[in-house]
Amino acid sequence: MLRSIDEIIEMVKGKKKIISIAGAEDKEAIKAVYEAKELGVSAILFGKKEIVEKNLSELGVEYPIIDCRNDEEASRLAVKYVVEGKCHIVMKGLVKTSTLLKAVLDKECGLRTERLLSHVTLVEVPGMNRLVFITDGGMVIRPTLEQKVQIIENAVSIATKLGYEMPKVGILAAVETVNPDMPETLEAAMLAKMNERGQIKGCKVDGPLGIDNALSVYAAEVKGIKGEVAGHADILVVPDIHSGNFLGKSAVYFANGRIAGIIAGAKAPVIVISRADASDSKFASIALAMALS
Amino acid sequence: MLRSIDEIIEMVKGKKKIISIAGAEDKEAIKAVYEAKELGVSAILFGKKEIVEKNLSELGVEYPIIDCRNDEEASRLAVKYVVEGKCHIVMKGLVKTSTLLKAVLDKECGLRTERLLSHVTLVEVPGMNRLVFITDGGMVIRPTLEQKVQIIENAVSIATKLGYEMPKVGILAAVETVNPDMPETLEAAMLAKMNERGQIKGCKVDGPLGIDNALSVYAAEVKGIKGEVAGHADILVVPDIHSGNFLGKSAVYFANGRIAGIIAGAKAPVIVISRADASDSKFASIALAMALS
Repeated sequence: MLRSIDEIIEMVKGKKKIISIAGAEDKEAIKAVYEAKELGVSAILFGKKEIVEKNLSELGVEYPIIDCRNDEEASRLAVKYVVEGKCHIVMKGLVKTSTLLKAVLDKECGLRTERLLSHVTLVEVPGMNRLVFITDGGMVIRPTLEQKVQIIENAVSIATKLGYEMPKVGILAAVETVNPDMPETLEAAMLAKMNERGQIKGCKVDGPLGIDNALSVYAAEVKGIKGEVAGHADILVVPDIHSGNFLGKSAVYFANGRIAGIIAGAKAPVIVISRADASDSKFASIALAMALS
Repeated sequence: MLRSIDEIIEMVKGKKKIISIAGAEDKEAIKAVYEAKELGVSAILFGKKEIVEKNLSELGVEYPIIDCRNDEEASRLAVKYVVEGKCHIVMKGLVKTSTLLKAVLDKECGLRTERLLSHVTLVEVPGMNRLVFITDGGMVIRPTLEQKVQIIENAVSIATKLGYEMPKVGILAAVETVNPDMPETLEAAMLAKMNERGQIKGCKVDGPLGIDNALSVYAAEVKGIKGEVAGHADILVVPDIHSGNFLGKSAVYFANGRIAGIIAGAKAPVIVISRADASDSKFASIALAMALS
């Protein structure tokens, strides 16, 4: 169990990792990587050379540039460099997320695996004495049951890489009872049973759980909810993108917390940073990607 | 604009209000009212006299008891006392929420209005220098467009009673663009236009907005989102019960904040307190109900 994002930062310090930035006309992306240089991270920049060079000189930093004519080429080459082992992490710059992900998912020269791509947010907030993962608040709009299984597997694989032995997965809903009017509570029950039957491995799954009884031992006790997950969830699985998005952002805008985000399910970590992200969250996302690469 | 729940507590201090507790076999409900007695609040208890008397003597407090044979009668009489002006606020004790709401909505002797019943959570968190209302995270599972209009109207009516002149309403989604794959973004656009055309009055509505650009001026600027609501939202309208529920609970479990909850749309405020709620949140809910009664 991790208590703080600083533990991840400690984990990766000195690891030499290179990030390929697709669409390096994006000053913010370069700045984020540069500000994380103490972690041992460097970059190769993919974009229109002239613009990228101007940005570099304005920022006063130096990274190798691969001149690309357009977003498609920048995305393709940024991914290719990771496939070939010249880079370790892909990061979205000034290309569309869809363009980058198309390159990531390319069957011939991409980073595709058998698994779905899904988004995982790692959250550090004053209200919790441990980190929690939220998934998927950034990628799959309205996952099916099968997609939820893969979303869980991706998050479990991340937690495992970070040292969790048997992460506890809470499938969230507004209530902790199985309610035919709330499909997410039905799927939560199905996912819990699939875990019990060995169809989802390497973790303990329970649900439906309210966020209160997933996170707080006291709330779980008051509601009389037993089991290993209640009150101790490491991974919170949300029903859809908007509920996960609100929850992840509440960690920042309600709680003054710190978050790190990653796209999982490819052969290498993919970082999509928003310009509106706080700089400590960008730093944390890079550290998380380094730990997973 | 309110900055703190303490402002509401100050507002109601000394107001003499009586709460009718439906199902007063619930010690926690009685305790919550008793702990708010400094506000000037009192109670009339509806339930099985023998059990309620035992609870009262254990707690060492005294309130009038109306002996009721079952939950239906307790709910009906608790509501009747409010209709007749002997009480001012209805509170759920040890009766089912559905039983109480049936009594509230009774066409002949209930507290029914033309409006939908909806839930509003008032949130105070360290990350914000003002209070925000979240709706609906507790009542309507998956509101239609028409129901969202009423949900907005109920919340605006609450905000107005608390002194807001023209509350700013942000319709939340995972993204701030209108996206055909995300129905909540489409409805957000519709609701914004309905407000512009005067179909939703007494407030400024905008959406779709991400929670970041609804709450933070900085995030709104970075994303280039203009308008009066972006960065200044007082009321956050969520797409469905689970996303609102997560967001409200994140205020407590992520942010160590304080929340108050109320059911709006009836002729009198209805309080549904959960046993797992922190005592400061129960206190805040009672204060909010007093301010609205």
